[in-house]
Amino acid sequence: MAPAPLKLIALNCTLKSKRSNEQSSTDVLLGQIVEELGKYDCNGEIIRVVDLNIKPGVTSDEGEGDDWPALRKRILDADVLVVGTPIWLGQPSSVAKRIFERMDAFFSEKDDQQRTPAFGRTGAVAVVGNEDGAHHVSAELFQCLLDVGFAIPPHALTYWVGEALGETDYKDLMRTPKPVAQMTQMLAANVAHMARLLKRDPFPGLQ
Amino acid sequence: MAPAPLKLIALNCTLKSKRSNEQSSTDVLLGQIVEELGKYDCNGEIIRVVDLNIKPGVTSDEGEGDDWPALRKRILDADVLVVGTPIWLGQPSSVAKRIFERMDAFFSEKDDQQRTPAFGRTGAVAVVGNEDGAHHVSAELFQCLLDVGFAIPPHALTYWVGEALGETDYKDLMRTPKPVAQMTQMLAANVAHMARLLKRDPFPGLQ
Amino acid sequence: MAPAPLKLIALNCTLKSKRSNEQSSTDVLLGQIVEELGKYDCNGEIIRVVDLNIKPGVTSDEGEGDDWPALRKRILDADVLVVGTPIWLGQPSSVAKRIFERMDAFFSEKDDQQRTPAFGRTGAVAVVGNEDGAHHVSAELFQCLLDVGFAIPPHALTYWVGEALGETDYKDLMRTPKPVAQMTQMLAANVAHMARLLKRDPFPGLQ
Amino acid sequence: MAPAPLKLIALNCTLKSKRSNEQSSTDVLLGQIVEELGKYDCNGEIIRVVDLNIKPGVTSDEGEGDDWPALRKRILDADVLVVGTPIWLGQPSSVAKRIFERMDAFFSEKDDQQRTPAFGRTGAVAVVGNEDGAHHVSAELFQCLLDVGFAIPPHALTYWVGEALGETDYKDLMRTPKPVAQMTQMLAANVAHMARLLKRDPFPGLQ
Repeated sequence: MAPAPLKLIALNCTLKSKRSNEQSSTDVLLGQIVEELGKYDCNGEIIRVVDLNIKPGVTSDEGEGDDWPALRKRILDADVLVVGTPIWLGQPSSVAKRIFERMDAFFSEKDDQQRTPAFGRTGAVAVVGNEDGAHHVSAELFQCLLDVGFAIPPHALTYWVGEALGETDYKDLMRTPKPVAQMTQMLAANVAHMARLLKRDPFPGLQ
Repeated sequence: MAPAPLKLIALNCTLKSKRSNEQSSTDVLLGQIVEELGKYDCNGEIIRVVDLNIKPGVTSDEGEGDDWPALRKRILDADVLVVGTPIWLGQPSSVAKRIFERMDAFFSEKDDQQRTPAFGRTGAVAVVGNEDGAHHVSAELFQCLLDVGFAIPPHALTYWVGEALGETDYKDLMRTPKPVAQMTQMLAANVAHMARLLKRDPFPGLQ
Repeated sequence: MAPAPLKLIALNCTLKSKRSNEQSSTDVLLGQIVEELGKYDCNGEIIRVVDLNIKPGVTSDEGEGDDWPALRKRILDADVLVVGTPIWLGQPSSVAKRIFERMDAFFSEKDDQQRTPAFGRTGAVAVVGNEDGAHHVSAELFQCLLDVGFAIPPHALTYWVGEALGETDYKDLMRTPKPVAQMTQMLAANVAHMARLLKRDPFPGLQ
Repeated sequence: MAPAPLKLIALNCTLKSKRSNEQSSTDVLLGQIVEELGKYDCNGEIIRVVDLNIKPGVTSDEGEGDDWPALRKRILDADVLVVGTPIWLGQPSSVAKRIFERMDAFFSEKDDQQRTPAFGRTGAVAVVGNEDGAHHVSAELFQCLLDVGFAIPPHALTYWVGEALGETDYKDLMRTPKPVAQMTQMLAANVAHMARLLKRDPFPGLQ
C-alpha cells in the first residue's frame, strides 16, 4: 500500500515583493526543497509572505485587512511547514519574525491535552545569504518552530552562504553545489519520514 | 564650562499601535531611560515605530510612502540611539528587526575613511517581556548596532522580565524594582559619557 | 502488548563538581525529568559531566585520559539524550559546549545512507538559572542536537528562571511551580512518544 | 606629544594545544590584529588559553592549580582585550565560554561607583571557521564583553569563514583576502581610538 500523500506549505520570508520582478534566492532554494519533497509524495505551494498583509500583533486575527487568519489556516492544513528566509546582519528577516509572532497565539489555543494547534506537524528551515549566518538563523527558527508546537527531524535544514564578506547570490550560481543538493535531499527524506510517522501516530499530549 | 548638550532618539519597537490605547511596557521603560539621560543633558523623543510605514527592504529609500528616510535622518541627527523592544518567543520583535534591515544600507554608504553614517554615535538597548529572553535580545541588538556603526559602552542595557512562564507586564508593576532602576541609571551614566567623548573626538576611520 | 522499554541518558552540564557537595539546581530539574520519563518506561542515569575528563577537541577520541569515548558510547546506547545546563551570562555552560564539540565528530562518521551515529535518537533540553536566558540556551542546544543528528519533538524543553536580576536558585524553591511541573510532564510525553516511533521506524536516510 | 602607549592581551580560544604543533587559524588572525594594533602603539601578547588550567566555576579563584587568577590579572592590566575563537557548530568554543564564566565574578566585584573591574577597558573579537557562524559568535562574545564591563567600538570584529560546508582553513589561504585585511585595519583604528579616550576619561559610574 502506498503511503498517504502529505501536504506542505513553504513560506518565503524574503524582503522582496514578487512585484519587483527580482528573483529571490530564497525562492530558488525553496523550489529545490519542494521538488525533493515531491519525490516523497509531499506536495504544496510556496507563499511569498511579504506580499501579504500580515499585521503586527500576537493574536490569531488582528482585524480588518489582516491576511494572517487565511495563512494560519493554510499552515495548519498542511503536514509540513518549510520556513525559508534570507540572512540580514546574520539574523532572520523581519518577515520571518512576524510569522512567528503571530504563531505565539498558539500558546493560548491549546486543546485539553495541552497541545498547540501545530502539534503533529513537522517543520524545516531553508536559509540563504551572501555570507555568514545560516547556523544562527536556523537556531532561531528551530527554537520558534519547536516552541509553537512543530516537531523537527535531524538535518531539517538546507542553506547556502558565500565566503566571508562575499556578494554572490545563490540565484546566480551556475550550478547547485553538490553538498547543498545533498543537504536538500536529506532534508526531504527526514521531513517526509517524520511527517508520516506523526500523521499515523499523533502526539497524545497530557491525559 | 558645561558639557555640550546631547540629542537622543528612542525607538519603541513594540507591536502595539498607539491607536490601540493600550499602554506599552516598552514605552514605560524607555520613558525611564529618557528621564535618566535628561539628567546628563541628553534629550529627545520616543518614536513608536509600528505606527510608521517602514517598508521592507535594505535600501535607504524604498519609495512611495516609505517613512524610513525621515526616520533615518532623525537617527543620524542624534548622538544617542536607544532601541527598545518587547520579547516574543525569546527574540526581538519584527519591528526591531525591520529597523536594522534598513540600516544595513549604511554598509554601502561609507565615507572615504570607511566609516558608516552611524560612526560616532552611541547605542543602548531596553528590553521588556513577561518572561525570559532579555540577554539574547540584547545580544542580537548589540551586534546589529555595532555592525552598522554604533559604539556601545558597558552596561548599556536595561531590562525587566518576570519569573519563568510569568504573565505580569512591566507596566503593571506597582513600583520599579530597585535593581532595574539602578541599571537604568548606570545605562544613562555610561551612554552620556561615551557619547560626549565621541562627539569631541570622533573615530578617525582609515586614513 | 506493552511498548518496548526506552533507555535515556541525562547529562548535567553544571560547573559544580559532585565533590563540592553543593546541590546542583540542574540536577534537581533533571531528576524531575527522569522521574516523569520513568512513567513511560524510559529509564537511565544522570551523569555529572564536569567530573569527567572530557578533553578539548573535535574527534571521538582525544587520547590518553579522555573520558569522552566511554561517554560517547553511553549516549549512543540510549534512545533519549537529555542535556541539562545552567545559564551563565544568558548562555549555555562551557561544559555543555564541550559535549557538542565532541559530537561534531559525528559528521565524519556518517553511514552509507548519510546518517550520523545519533540518527534515530531523540533529544531534550533542561535549563535553570537565577534569571533570564532559557529560550536562547534552548535555541543553542536544539540547534546542536539537530545538527549532530537527534530529532526533537515539540515542547522538549523544561526550564526555570527567576525574575530579572533575581538570585534565587531552583533547588531552593519551596515547591516546583505548577507550570514548570506541567512543562516537565509534557516534555516526557512528547519525548517518549517520538523515541518509540523512531525506534520502530528509523530514518532511512538517503538510498 | 605622542599618545600614551596602550597594552593589549589577546586570548586564543582554539581547542588545539600548542603542544599539538598544529597551527591555529585563530592564531593567524590574532597575529594580524596584534600587528595592526602595534601601528597604534598598542602592544601585547597572544595567550593560548587551552594550555592553561582554567578551572570550571564562576569565582575569581577556584583554588589549587587554577590558572585563572594570573590570567585575570593580565586581562585587567591591559587596556584592550581581544578574544579570538574558532567556530564549532556555528557557536563559540567551550574555551571562550569558560573565560566568560570566570569573568561573571566581576559582577560581585563592583566598586562604590558600581563599576566592574573591566570598566574602562575596550574589547574586540576575532572569529575563524571553515564555514558560517561569525556573526552569531560575535554577538555572543560582544554581549559577554559588554555585560562584564568592556566597551566596544563599532567594527571591533574581524572574521573569516569559507563558503557553506567548506573545509578550507584560514591558515591555509594563499593570501589574506583584501576585505578581511581591511576589517582588521578598521578594528585596530577603532579599538585604539576608544581605548585612548577611555584611558584619559574613564567612566565615572554612579555617584
